[in-house]
Amino acid sequence: MRAFSPTARSRVKRLPKRAHYDRETIYGILDAAFVCHIGYVIDRQPYVTPTAYWREGDAVYWHGSSKSRMLTALERRPPICLTVTILDALVVARSGFHKSVNYRSAMLYGKPYKVEEAAEKLAKMQAFVERLYPGRWRGLRPVSRQELKATTVLGMHIEEASAKVRTGPPVDDAPDYALPIWGGLVPVRQVLGDPVDDGRLAPGSGRPPRVAL
Amino acid sequence: MRAFSPTARSRVKRLPKRAHYDRETIYGILDAAFVCHIGYVIDRQPYVTPTAYWREGDAVYWHGSSKSRMLTALERRPPICLTVTILDALVVARSGFHKSVNYRSAMLYGKPYKVEEAAEKLAKMQAFVERLYPGRWRGLRPVSRQELKATTVLGMHIEEASAKVRTGPPVDDAPDYALPIWGGLVPVRQVLGDPVDDGRLAPGSGRPPRVAL
Repeated sequence: MRAFSPTARSRVKRLPKRAHYDRETIYGILDAAFVCHIGYVIDRQPYVTPTAYWREGDAVYWHGSSKSRMLTALERRPPICLTVTILDALVVARSGFHKSVNYRSAMLYGKPYKVEEAAEKLAKMQAFVERLYPGRWRGLRPVSRQELKATTVLGMHIEEASAKVRTGPPVDDAPDYALPIWGGLVPVRQVLGDPVDDGRLAPGSGRPPRVAL
Repeated sequence: MRAFSPTARSRVKRLPKRAHYDRETIYGILDAAFVCHIGYVIDRQPYVTPTAYWREGDAVYWHGSSKSRMLTALERRPPICLTVTILDALVVARSGFHKSVNYRSAMLYGKPYKVEEAAEKLAKMQAFVERLYPGRWRGLRPVSRQELKATTVLGMHIEEASAKVRTGPPVDDAPDYALPIWGGLVPVRQVLGDPVDDGRLAPGSGRPPRVAL
């Protein structure tokens, strides 16, 4: 897979050794997360809206109600920034200055477009369900025409992208390692708990879905 | 505590029943998280940068290298949006249309300012360390004058804010509860793992810090 070519917009300025422009790294981050933050501008005011998303090839998709402010604003195809962040560890250093975090983040740039065609929209909704709950779609009550109409699906071809990744232990000043101060990592993970049914299961409802997170 | 008064900018348009403007709810979300996403605009292009932050009263703070593009851009005091999102559960519904997530998110609006005075800057760095690692500051190697200079600390008085919260089970269409399809919640949590020292501890380094996350 070809790497992205950074421009002034997407080149990582601070700590370039943490920067990555290859699709493997960037798509790996996108596929490991589930919620992104989308930045857009209305009347010179930036907004940052969290939303669930998924990736297909060189594009990302998200959806929501046709009444949503974010989705309505994005139908006009403004340039946006879509950021995904995964926190991996707290980096506990021996000085306040060197404390840090281990993380993987990806910033994507492009212009969103509305998926208009009904069959394509339905296929996107299916892809979203299957991304989170593999195999679940075929067992669900089908989406109605009205529901399809009430849903806006947006996509964005990834024009440019960069990732920033920090891994490894704290990097303390050489003399500080002699100090009697603990240094290391505290791992951070997102975990799924045991599923809790809603107490309204019909007979034969079976087991909770497998979650691909 | 007085609630925020929503304007066109901060009023939640979609699903107003999920909206909250009271400080208890909004500050509760801010104090339960640690990483925010800051939206800002450079030459009409929005950027969304993740960063660690902390709250003190009606203000939020964050910091970084004086060389950071985000921090340099924000020193000009543009309007920004600072968003914090906590994912609580996957909401597994009986139809693709009603699937959802339980979450708590806060969107803050204001103009950042640079903390210039050295003593105040140092106090902010202390507050940040203590927010994450209560009691740790006094045991650390002190911040040098040079380190203080290399650090930009930004603050933002919260002008306006809104929160959006979804809780509870899936809300399926009445007839769908008769279908043999599992419905309920899959809880999602961020957890801390066991601390791992960096293998370079000096004698008497003691135990890992307590983490207030």
